[in-house]
Amino acid sequence: MSINEQLFQTICGQAREAALLHSAADTLEWDERTRMPPAAGDYRAQQVSALRAAVHRLKTDGQFAEDLQTAIDQLGDEDPHSDAASTIRMLHRDWQRDRKLPTELVERVAGATVRGQQSWDHARRQNDFSLFRDVLDEVIDLKQEVGQRIAAGSERTTYEALMDEYEPDASEQQIQAVFDAVRGPLVELITQIRASSRRPDPEVLKREYPIAAQRRFSENVAQRIGFDFQRGRLDETSHPFCTTLGPHDCRILTRYDLHWLPSGLFGTLHEAGHGLYEQGLRTDWFGLPPGSYTSLGIHESQSRLWENQVGRSKAFWSYLYPDAQKSFTPNLDDVALADFYFAVNWVQPSLIRVEADEATYNLHILIRFDLEKQLIDGSLSAGDLPEAWNDRYERDLGIRPPSDADGVLQDVHWSAGLFGYFPTYTLGNLVSAQLFDAAGKQIGDLQAAIGEGDFQPLRQWLIENVHRYGRCYSGEELVRRATGGSLSADHLIKYLRDKLQPLYGITE
Amino acid sequence: MSINEQLFQTICGQAREAALLHSAADTLEWDERTRMPPAAGDYRAQQVSALRAAVHRLKTDGQFAEDLQTAIDQLGDEDPHSDAASTIRMLHRDWQRDRKLPTELVERVAGATVRGQQSWDHARRQNDFSLFRDVLDEVIDLKQEVGQRIAAGSERTTYEALMDEYEPDASEQQIQAVFDAVRGPLVELITQIRASSRRPDPEVLKREYPIAAQRRFSENVAQRIGFDFQRGRLDETSHPFCTTLGPHDCRILTRYDLHWLPSGLFGTLHEAGHGLYEQGLRTDWFGLPPGSYTSLGIHESQSRLWENQVGRSKAFWSYLYPDAQKSFTPNLDDVALADFYFAVNWVQPSLIRVEADEATYNLHILIRFDLEKQLIDGSLSAGDLPEAWNDRYERDLGIRPPSDADGVLQDVHWSAGLFGYFPTYTLGNLVSAQLFDAAGKQIGDLQAAIGEGDFQPLRQWLIENVHRYGRCYSGEELVRRATGGSLSADHLIKYLRDKLQPLYGITE
Repeated sequence: MSINEQLFQTICGQAREAALLHSAADTLEWDERTRMPPAAGDYRAQQVSALRAAVHRLKTDGQFAEDLQTAIDQLGDEDPHSDAASTIRMLHRDWQRDRKLPTELVERVAGATVRGQQSWDHARRQNDFSLFRDVLDEVIDLKQEVGQRIAAGSERTTYEALMDEYEPDASEQQIQAVFDAVRGPLVELITQIRASSRRPDPEVLKREYPIAAQRRFSENVAQRIGFDFQRGRLDETSHPFCTTLGPHDCRILTRYDLHWLPSGLFGTLHEAGHGLYEQGLRTDWFGLPPGSYTSLGIHESQSRLWENQVGRSKAFWSYLYPDAQKSFTPNLDDVALADFYFAVNWVQPSLIRVEADEATYNLHILIRFDLEKQLIDGSLSAGDLPEAWNDRYERDLGIRPPSDADGVLQDVHWSAGLFGYFPTYTLGNLVSAQLFDAAGKQIGDLQAAIGEGDFQPLRQWLIENVHRYGRCYSGEELVRRATGGSLSADHLIKYLRDKLQPLYGITE
Repeated sequence: MSINEQLFQTICGQAREAALLHSAADTLEWDERTRMPPAAGDYRAQQVSALRAAVHRLKTDGQFAEDLQTAIDQLGDEDPHSDAASTIRMLHRDWQRDRKLPTELVERVAGATVRGQQSWDHARRQNDFSLFRDVLDEVIDLKQEVGQRIAAGSERTTYEALMDEYEPDASEQQIQAVFDAVRGPLVELITQIRASSRRPDPEVLKREYPIAAQRRFSENVAQRIGFDFQRGRLDETSHPFCTTLGPHDCRILTRYDLHWLPSGLFGTLHEAGHGLYEQGLRTDWFGLPPGSYTSLGIHESQSRLWENQVGRSKAFWSYLYPDAQKSFTPNLDDVALADFYFAVNWVQPSLIRVEADEATYNLHILIRFDLEKQLIDGSLSAGDLPEAWNDRYERDLGIRPPSDADGVLQDVHWSAGLFGYFPTYTLGNLVSAQLFDAAGKQIGDLQAAIGEGDFQPLRQWLIENVHRYGRCYSGEELVRRATGGSLSADHLIKYLRDKLQPLYGITE
């Protein structure tokens, strides 16, 4: 038995209709974060809410649910990963999740997280966690209820149910195992680096880099790695992101710092990596599961791969460095390629996640992963969070935050109810190394191609092994198919050792 | 009897809901004309259509119509111009218009005008009207049907019914009478000017004016006359316009020409004038008739008043000229204020409407008004249009267009089905002179205030006499209330004579 064609088209039609309104709302939010006049915020929030509500109505409509159930029953022995079967499976999956949450609860979460973000912002400016504690408590309570409702009747933990929104089908146990496997070797590598007498000179990156020149250089880099400006744009904002407003409209945003070149440059590579994933999805399935990204971990793997595996590699800079010297003359005239390459691979334990280097970055995530699991299972209270945070930073990174603003208040996520989101960052790092390793083995002369500025083989490999499947495979399934192995910490550790140990003169 | 409060709130709620989606669609269109990547057009059209369709559903919903009818019956002896009564009257009026047009006809018009604009664009580039003729024929047929359906059962002509969309309640006969009254004196004034031996030197406006300097100067001018950048922005585009995306979000757009200063400068003043009207509307009535502009003629009167009565006045430049000299140094260092003032008031019959000066501009409109009435009543066919156009230009302006691109193909309006739109430009010119005259009499020392850069008295007068009423009064009623007289050609003629005759040394 197979899915009735007319039924399938009806279902797709409704999902596409929802995507039209969803992407319209995203367009309004992009405008809000880039162009909107200061006083226009309240009305903009009403416009976006009206659109989101219309999307929700389309997605939870009774007839739509009935159609999905009928189609699920018709799947029979069809390949569950075919476009059609994936469409039905994933839309049904989304619906099953949505229907478990009463509108009233969704509204309470929305209200609490809006207040949560405002209160977080205020507390951070005041550098006083106590101003944020009560609303954080409230958000945690609500997200516990959300997780419990979604987990009900399944084997999943509350935390796993929350994580599912960002990394569908991920197993908390498996992620815990991989994270445990990454921790030891990472700490060992960082200890080796701190003990080394070799140091890069990051000061060369702190010279004055005119914003206009950075902008031109970043646009040029994004274009060279393959970001299609016919189908996208690059803009500036205070918190960089990537958003997709249509099948041919992907917007990436970065921020430039006059005295810190890596901010705009690697920010652009990172967001362009996200953008290449979005631009690599099949446009004829836009708004439907086969044309949508499969998980945040996979999304992050694409951004990190271009930012780090490519963007912080020796081959990349051997190709691009003459251009950089010319673009920022005279800043880099006296800096040798090897020194520049070492500088952009500077490893230094620090307090702020978004400024962390490749090696220490994951320690920031592991701390958050452990703490948020405890917040959700109730073994850690909001009031005890700052001390637990500071203790962990002291233990894992060797530095104790001197204030809440540099510690527990640095990220927006928890105030916005995003519990279960942080692990996708480290998942992305793990997957990026694993995919890049497989790509290297399958493509052959990948480093030589990068050294010549030819990014087409890598981009094509990613399209064929990751992008084109959309949600037809989960993140874990994609990794297995593309690399032949299951998710593992080994590739990231090997990648970091292979790059950093020679730089820091470490011999084992 | 008065309107039931609950019923009134229900009606307003639905209209506000429609306004949320309507303004969301406008936001997407602003983005389309300023930021959207080239390849994103098709999907953007789908997004906008989906939103427009949702607005249409809300506005033609059966219950909404019933509620409006009930409320109309409850109006009784309430002041028809009160906020509440105007809300009901105008929403009911809109609904009566909308319901006369079957969805199928609306869709056919939408399709034909999209093709019309594409075909017009192509024909203009090819400089060949014949490539546009067939689709123009089709658009005319469709708009005739639209006009006939709206006019059915009333005394109105088909053309008047079409014009009603832009200038509600306007009478074709009255507009014809005023236009006839303006023609003779205008032609006489232009003849005097052409016979004069005095000539300004427009070459000073054609020096190289760096775009960045023009941008800064224009933003500064917009701000000084009172455009609120907390509640709006100024951007650049190829076809300047003004659009309102929320009660505190008005976007104006201009274009700069490196070698023609008036383009960006007066374009900004013009659009800022539109913007001041939108920003002067009452925000608590946003999306409802008391918070919406009343007609395109009144809208144009606001833009033209700031562009011409203020922006091309001696007082304005006596205030602003030192700044202009400084902003564009050394371009104007050797140009006396009097010569600059004469240059921005250069009168010269020309072929292109959007580049026309204040005096000849209206002749361009009168030609279009006459021709489009004939196209709609069937006495002129699309095939005969180019010759009719060229003959009229030769007769009225003394110059025969050498090609279709410089003649009948210069404006987008007819390709987009906008028949009845052109007269609102001249209405705007007439009203701007009439309002400015009344403002001068009521404010007293208006010229002195302008000469000191104090635009507050004028802006306040416009808010109190025009903006704050929204649609509570029609354009004609507003003019009568604000000026004490009915619409007339006299004020524009007097204004132009008073300014231009001394400049050109004309004594009667």
